[in-house]
Amino acid sequence: MTITLYTAPTGNGRKPLIFLKLLNIPHNVHMFSWPAGDQLKQEWYLKLNPHAIIPTLVDGDLVLPESNAILSYLADTYDIEGKFSYKKESEPEKYWQSQKWIFYQATQFAGTLFRFNTFIGLKKPEEDDVIWKNILENFEKVYRVVNDHLKDREFFVGDKFTFVDLAFAVGHFRRIECAGKFGYEDWFKDYEEKYPYLIKWYDRVLQVPGFKEGLELK
Amino acid sequence: MTITLYTAPTGNGRKPLIFLKLLNIPHNVHMFSWPAGDQLKQEWYLKLNPHAIIPTLVDGDLVLPESNAILSYLADTYDIEGKFSYKKESEPEKYWQSQKWIFYQATQFAGTLFRFNTFIGLKKPEEDDVIWKNILENFEKVYRVVNDHLKDREFFVGDKFTFVDLAFAVGHFRRIECAGKFGYEDWFKDYEEKYPYLIKWYDRVLQVPGFKEGLELK
Repeated sequence: MTITLYTAPTGNGRKPLIFLKLLNIPHNVHMFSWPAGDQLKQEWYLKLNPHAIIPTLVDGDLVLPESNAILSYLADTYDIEGKFSYKKESEPEKYWQSQKWIFYQATQFAGTLFRFNTFIGLKKPEEDDVIWKNILENFEKVYRVVNDHLKDREFFVGDKFTFVDLAFAVGHFRRIECAGKFGYEDWFKDYEEKYPYLIKWYDRVLQVPGFKEGLELK
Repeated sequence: MTITLYTAPTGNGRKPLIFLKLLNIPHNVHMFSWPAGDQLKQEWYLKLNPHAIIPTLVDGDLVLPESNAILSYLADTYDIEGKFSYKKESEPEKYWQSQKWIFYQATQFAGTLFRFNTFIGLKKPEEDDVIWKNILENFEKVYRVVNDHLKDREFFVGDKFTFVDLAFAVGHFRRIECAGKFGYEDWFKDYEEKYPYLIKWYDRVLQVPGFKEGLELK
């Protein structure tokens, strides 16, 4: 069977791309340039992903959009030895903790980043804008939760780097990248000081062989 | 073991509440009033859910926030016969399709509903507001994807009602409820006409024994 990943160099787009590399799974990559514009609205792609977003994984007959569903699928199907994941059969508690965090990454972290990226492209934030205040408060909330969680831990779940760390670390990298691209680094200038455990964890993730190189894939 | 669900009468809050009833699982409910205000910021609740959101399921030693992670967990653990779900072991393709849709519900459907509810509470939409235009376009996009998907199908995955249908139907109900509450039904007035397959599917879901009554739980 052939695996093909349709993706782009964004936060969600990089997650499965890096995981395929770390798992050493043979695959093809169809890389869209970004911003994708109308590329994702081509009829052949809409058949795979009717919402016209990236990424989409095709593995034989299975067509799977949603980056965090793809990470779960790859872990479950190809990480047989549990190098980067926990097996439900042998470690159910750690398996469900991973599921909790991967949904949290999708809803609260990636959701806030989506609002930041989308709205900043639409309208320059005005001073005292309540909507922008809310977006920044949500970033703080997620970073605080993650920072507190990582206070006494090396990684999100158990004692090893898993696809949950991968998802959050890619999101954090993308947050920095986008703030820079749009010229709003100032909004996050005290994050290193406020969230030291998260910063230390991120440094650990950057040491995972293949992760840092994965961020550069285009 | 005792199961306790900490929840509130919202879209995400109702999902696990209804599923526990449908699965006929003995459980306790801790129902917060809504809007919850500072109730969720009490120290004892923050230990269960540091982001201060509902719902959270506690099942013995397992503490599980994130409504769609909870649905997956309940299906996997307590729906042994697969009445409302597919088993990975026997029907992997349908299992992963369910995972795809449950993540899509969390990110695109519930994410858009979150923006609608949060922002409308913060600031009255102005005419030609690009941010509101974007939110409404995202609703249209999700409704179109779902409507097209349900054109030739009775339910989201396979031929039976599953927790995926539950999640989307509760979200649809909540969307109607919130539009009404804030006085913006007009924005959605042509949805019945534009998304007829979704409306028919929703009528089917309302026939599932216990579902409609579940929506009324408070």
